[in-house]
Amino acid sequence: MSKKVVLAFSGGLDTSYCAVYLAKEMGLEVHAALANTGGFSKEELEKIEQRAWVLGVKSYVCLDVSQQYYEQSIKYMIFGNVLKNGTYPISVSSERISQATAIAEYALKLNADYICHGSTGAGNDQVRFDMIFEIIAPKIEVIALIREKRLAREEEIEYLRKNGVDFDFKKAEYSINQGIWGTSVGGKETLTSSETLPEEAYPSQLKETAPKRIRLTFERGEMTAIDGVRYDDRVKGIQELQRIAAPYAIGRDMHVGDTIIGIKGRVGFEAAAPMIIIKSHHTLEKHTLTKWQLFWKDQISAFYGNYLHEGQYYDPVMRDIEAMLDSSQKYVSGDVIVELLPYRFVVVGIESEHDLMSSKFGSYGEMMADWTGDDVKGFTKIFGNQVSMHRKINGDN
Amino acid sequence: MSKKVVLAFSGGLDTSYCAVYLAKEMGLEVHAALANTGGFSKEELEKIEQRAWVLGVKSYVCLDVSQQYYEQSIKYMIFGNVLKNGTYPISVSSERISQATAIAEYALKLNADYICHGSTGAGNDQVRFDMIFEIIAPKIEVIALIREKRLAREEEIEYLRKNGVDFDFKKAEYSINQGIWGTSVGGKETLTSSETLPEEAYPSQLKETAPKRIRLTFERGEMTAIDGVRYDDRVKGIQELQRIAAPYAIGRDMHVGDTIIGIKGRVGFEAAAPMIIIKSHHTLEKHTLTKWQLFWKDQISAFYGNYLHEGQYYDPVMRDIEAMLDSSQKYVSGDVIVELLPYRFVVVGIESEHDLMSSKFGSYGEMMADWTGDDVKGFTKIFGNQVSMHRKINGDN
Amino acid sequence: MSKKVVLAFSGGLDTSYCAVYLAKEMGLEVHAALANTGGFSKEELEKIEQRAWVLGVKSYVCLDVSQQYYEQSIKYMIFGNVLKNGTYPISVSSERISQATAIAEYALKLNADYICHGSTGAGNDQVRFDMIFEIIAPKIEVIALIREKRLAREEEIEYLRKNGVDFDFKKAEYSINQGIWGTSVGGKETLTSSETLPEEAYPSQLKETAPKRIRLTFERGEMTAIDGVRYDDRVKGIQELQRIAAPYAIGRDMHVGDTIIGIKGRVGFEAAAPMIIIKSHHTLEKHTLTKWQLFWKDQISAFYGNYLHEGQYYDPVMRDIEAMLDSSQKYVSGDVIVELLPYRFVVVGIESEHDLMSSKFGSYGEMMADWTGDDVKGFTKIFGNQVSMHRKINGDN
Amino acid sequence: MSKKVVLAFSGGLDTSYCAVYLAKEMGLEVHAALANTGGFSKEELEKIEQRAWVLGVKSYVCLDVSQQYYEQSIKYMIFGNVLKNGTYPISVSSERISQATAIAEYALKLNADYICHGSTGAGNDQVRFDMIFEIIAPKIEVIALIREKRLAREEEIEYLRKNGVDFDFKKAEYSINQGIWGTSVGGKETLTSSETLPEEAYPSQLKETAPKRIRLTFERGEMTAIDGVRYDDRVKGIQELQRIAAPYAIGRDMHVGDTIIGIKGRVGFEAAAPMIIIKSHHTLEKHTLTKWQLFWKDQISAFYGNYLHEGQYYDPVMRDIEAMLDSSQKYVSGDVIVELLPYRFVVVGIESEHDLMSSKFGSYGEMMADWTGDDVKGFTKIFGNQVSMHRKINGDN
Repeated sequence: MSKKVVLAFSGGLDTSYCAVYLAKEMGLEVHAALANTGGFSKEELEKIEQRAWVLGVKSYVCLDVSQQYYEQSIKYMIFGNVLKNGTYPISVSSERISQATAIAEYALKLNADYICHGSTGAGNDQVRFDMIFEIIAPKIEVIALIREKRLAREEEIEYLRKNGVDFDFKKAEYSINQGIWGTSVGGKETLTSSETLPEEAYPSQLKETAPKRIRLTFERGEMTAIDGVRYDDRVKGIQELQRIAAPYAIGRDMHVGDTIIGIKGRVGFEAAAPMIIIKSHHTLEKHTLTKWQLFWKDQISAFYGNYLHEGQYYDPVMRDIEAMLDSSQKYVSGDVIVELLPYRFVVVGIESEHDLMSSKFGSYGEMMADWTGDDVKGFTKIFGNQVSMHRKINGDN
Repeated sequence: MSKKVVLAFSGGLDTSYCAVYLAKEMGLEVHAALANTGGFSKEELEKIEQRAWVLGVKSYVCLDVSQQYYEQSIKYMIFGNVLKNGTYPISVSSERISQATAIAEYALKLNADYICHGSTGAGNDQVRFDMIFEIIAPKIEVIALIREKRLAREEEIEYLRKNGVDFDFKKAEYSINQGIWGTSVGGKETLTSSETLPEEAYPSQLKETAPKRIRLTFERGEMTAIDGVRYDDRVKGIQELQRIAAPYAIGRDMHVGDTIIGIKGRVGFEAAAPMIIIKSHHTLEKHTLTKWQLFWKDQISAFYGNYLHEGQYYDPVMRDIEAMLDSSQKYVSGDVIVELLPYRFVVVGIESEHDLMSSKFGSYGEMMADWTGDDVKGFTKIFGNQVSMHRKINGDN
Repeated sequence: MSKKVVLAFSGGLDTSYCAVYLAKEMGLEVHAALANTGGFSKEELEKIEQRAWVLGVKSYVCLDVSQQYYEQSIKYMIFGNVLKNGTYPISVSSERISQATAIAEYALKLNADYICHGSTGAGNDQVRFDMIFEIIAPKIEVIALIREKRLAREEEIEYLRKNGVDFDFKKAEYSINQGIWGTSVGGKETLTSSETLPEEAYPSQLKETAPKRIRLTFERGEMTAIDGVRYDDRVKGIQELQRIAAPYAIGRDMHVGDTIIGIKGRVGFEAAAPMIIIKSHHTLEKHTLTKWQLFWKDQISAFYGNYLHEGQYYDPVMRDIEAMLDSSQKYVSGDVIVELLPYRFVVVGIESEHDLMSSKFGSYGEMMADWTGDDVKGFTKIFGNQVSMHRKINGDN
Repeated sequence: MSKKVVLAFSGGLDTSYCAVYLAKEMGLEVHAALANTGGFSKEELEKIEQRAWVLGVKSYVCLDVSQQYYEQSIKYMIFGNVLKNGTYPISVSSERISQATAIAEYALKLNADYICHGSTGAGNDQVRFDMIFEIIAPKIEVIALIREKRLAREEEIEYLRKNGVDFDFKKAEYSINQGIWGTSVGGKETLTSSETLPEEAYPSQLKETAPKRIRLTFERGEMTAIDGVRYDDRVKGIQELQRIAAPYAIGRDMHVGDTIIGIKGRVGFEAAAPMIIIKSHHTLEKHTLTKWQLFWKDQISAFYGNYLHEGQYYDPVMRDIEAMLDSSQKYVSGDVIVELLPYRFVVVGIESEHDLMSSKFGSYGEMMADWTGDDVKGFTKIFGNQVSMHRKINGDN
């Protein structure tokens, strides 16, 4: 009886090559699995499945991990307002974690002998896949076939052709990675430091120019409704917001960041819904959290985002940080009004019963009933005490 | 011989009232001083001086503190990419520090008996002025006349009229505070949580729509040239960039934040040059600094910005942080290309000989000469070691 | 009908003075309340109550807050290994929070018009009491009688004598503050920077010199047993450990730290049980937590300790940090063996099924089954990648 | 002409084996180099050199790197009060950096083709050596002979014997690593989690029991004198303090920590001078630095210590942190009085003209001239403002 391999399948050239090679050359029973985090259309999913069967796999499965992805990563990236280096909503890397986890758990369920992924030896994904497979399924051997063989694109196509597979693998000008938390665009300009992607490289083109106001409802930090329509399925809510905002070509930027393997990588991205949600959520937090809540959330979320990006989701420190983030969201509830405009959006304001800028206590700039100028005078004296003394003792600094 | 008071004078209603009251009612010799951080035009400066003489001050001086302000605060806000709560370039509060310092030092020079400021008991500025006066000139008594008297606007106008002063103190719809590091706009909508400023409340109106590329040169973190024109006077460089970018109506937003006295305050602002400089500088850093340099700069700069906002500039911890920021800028040199567009701008890319994304070492996504897939495989094994063990011992987490 | 005041009563000179003054001079109905955090013996409690009645209070109550104190503060100071500035187990200040809370809640229950505390205007406690009273019972007015009157010790004694109260208020050489989380000792030497307390100033004298091994059991971070004897009442466990360890004169030191009001304060302390528990707990954590769990716990606990010391227990950021600390304790279970010796103790070692140094995976310094030297070689190459590139581009740093 | 190899030589079994193997089997010209960080006696150094010549090396050199080691690492570990996990003065790992650097620079100078180190594949040192060699001398190939060959101890001895070398390589019961910043002791008990080293395993035995007071002088954070005797050579000062304190058997403990390769490692250590210097320095800082200086130094030094331990000395973030630490030491000058006692020491107090507890401003607990109870009352009101409002809006938290 031949040994079983679970292949993390995407329908692309690399994993198509793997599907054939694993069966033909290594004599393995190939079980293809696609871990879908929500970035594929129904048509795309069908095409991928068809390809799998054409490639002769023993079984094919599409694992829907969008809910796990939301619960594991997206939710906390919202709570933490996570933008890597203040820019990038960590679209791709956070997906890989849920995908790798689902594949590894599927391999355990199938009692597989091997897991194969199609990552090359040049990027971050190999680290994420290898590491998470090892953590979740330490007894199953990992085959990183593409990394090991180091074949040129043409060699893979030629091998497939010889084995009767003749898909249309035309090399796209840009490598595009579409997910619910943003789409990354790599190639050409992103390989330089000085050029930016052309308009047409972005998946969404500007189709709408009339300003539009929308109202997002948050409950304990999660976006639960758009214009009063409730989304108990949070993923659906994000997708709906994306549908509304994408025609405005919102949320594009270039990001350059540190890869896990120590080099700098640059990527373009478009992430209308993520950028709107994060800025809206952050604004609501600025109204409802105390100064030090805001401060410490930021400090710890910066680490959280970096470490998530590096695939270290399973370090228990991540659970500790999530516990802190969960706690912080207790009163982050209310509505945020957003105006969509061509290429940009404006957070108009918020309405929340937890708003600490509550007019019940007067407004900044007007005198308050609760304290006097004398109180502030006393406050200031004490607030400046240590520095005053420091200067008296040490002179200038 | 009457005692001397140095009055921090702005030409507005409150400090005009002080000028008369201090002389007439308190019998003091009034020395008016305006600390100019670069926000006034020549005409405005002349008008303020004229008013001072009309009010009968003994002496008047305009202290130009724009260079000190740049060296003390702006430079480090750039190095630290300081945006309060990720939004606001701390335009107003950082100015107050240099102003208060200059006023206090002037009072020491004049051997004054008192310093008077015109802040009310409702805002942050009273804390900044009181505290810095106390630190720099602990033996000079502070008179916070407006805070103490708590007069209505009309009462002040009436008092001045009785004393023969009849300036045109019409109440502006918005309170506008213009400086080189941004202009704040307060009033009406900013007193609510849910509304945004109307287009016309902003000082710069959209006048230019044709996209324009500019090239900013940075040396060790400081912007030193625009399109090849060098600005050894850094303040002039910022002002020139503001002149170029303002017609695009760039850099507007609303900020809600924590005041020193514990309540939330909301303010609109427009800061074209600051926002462009900070994002350009940050992008250059992402290319030239290591992962942990970026991380720690962010952590420490978040505190720096908050504490600066609270007027605690003279705590020696600020010098320690500045030393760290200075060190971090060693290789933050190069050009940043920026595209100006209506209401927004795009950082196109950078060119730097210190770019860690240097093509000398290959690009992310292509195989490198310097390491192999096997190296990454080994790396991954070790990188995931602790979490693997943790899971083997403790099971799920 | 006269108005009611709840007096935070301790039986000392200041609060005895208040008891009489509030009734006689202010015509209030005085309800004395002692908030006991566990530092008093039965005899002391009786003496305090007798004094209250002699002073003519309308009612007296002893509020036992030791359990709340443990749950609110001690537990998290253990989880966070909180030692202020690496030295002091925050014995006194953390108690004040639970005491002030209990007093304020009691005043609410009694529908009191006033709360009175006996703190002077010179220390930290006035801030803690005022602030927590204001937070818990914002509508009840606070009377800080001692701070307001600024009487000399002798004047207070004289006043009491005139009113027929002649307790023995001899001024102790040292001011001693005893609680379950340590005893502070102030006076004489602590007012200097250069001298240390004499042996006899400490409450516990060395009575035991024979080395003794004890075994402390922790469950999810809490000490639950000593030498196999279980303490479901955690406070009793701490008290028992104190009883065992005190004769060794363990846990003494001097601390100099920042007071809330900005000056430096110095204090001696003795805290055998707290120091043993914290070091034991920390050692267990070093065996059971990952590198980054240890790192972030430390960072956030340093702030937690400082802010707790400043009485800011009710800022919701404290709840967020506690959530993180709670999460981190999931596997901090096991036994810690401690050797008690004169004036010191040694943590001998730990036994835990969650020990990440588990011999199942080999020991540090021996070759592992799970990875090879080649893996480490690859790891090292990638681990040093960014710095290598940095140096190639920039030369020396 | 044969190729050159620089061998990092220690005179032990592993590097003796390398010396012979590199010449005999690989045909290389062997240049032995010992990088001495100050842990060897003159006799030991002579013995090591003799062994080198007996082993037939082409050249031998002893590189004295104690000054570099002090300037590169020890100084900043003092400034940062660095104790890994609050316990361990990072004795061994910080040395490796200066040693590896010196060896690599020597190899560059000699124009060597290879560098060889004797680390096994099981520990941290291989990472430090490989990585620093790669950073400093990227073009020189590294031979990690012991890691590659994976020989048993007996095989190495046998090989040497066959090649005419018959040194006395008796296996010590404990592996001892002596340096100026502490001596580590590994073996037997340190391989368990539950046992501690016996008294006799420690290098210094208790020989002195009479209490002794010494006075350490610090200037800008560096220890410059002991009992008034100045040590311009800081290393000599540390060695002198070690000479004085070692007979008290001070500074022993066990440390369990995270190795670079992800597993936990446990080690005993004895470090009298480092522990005395760090606690003395820290006490002086508590008197001379502001609250936030103390806070941020701790946060950033925790990372510094960890990253130094991992051999990442050359990341420029380390220079940034050092700049911050340098700045913080501006006023850390004064005397610290320490009492030495059997197995422990007490910091008696400090004398410094920069002492912020200066009696010029009154003492904590007494009323100050500079502010009143009313000032504190006002301070408290404002200080508690945000939390008060939070509670009014949200109720309990």
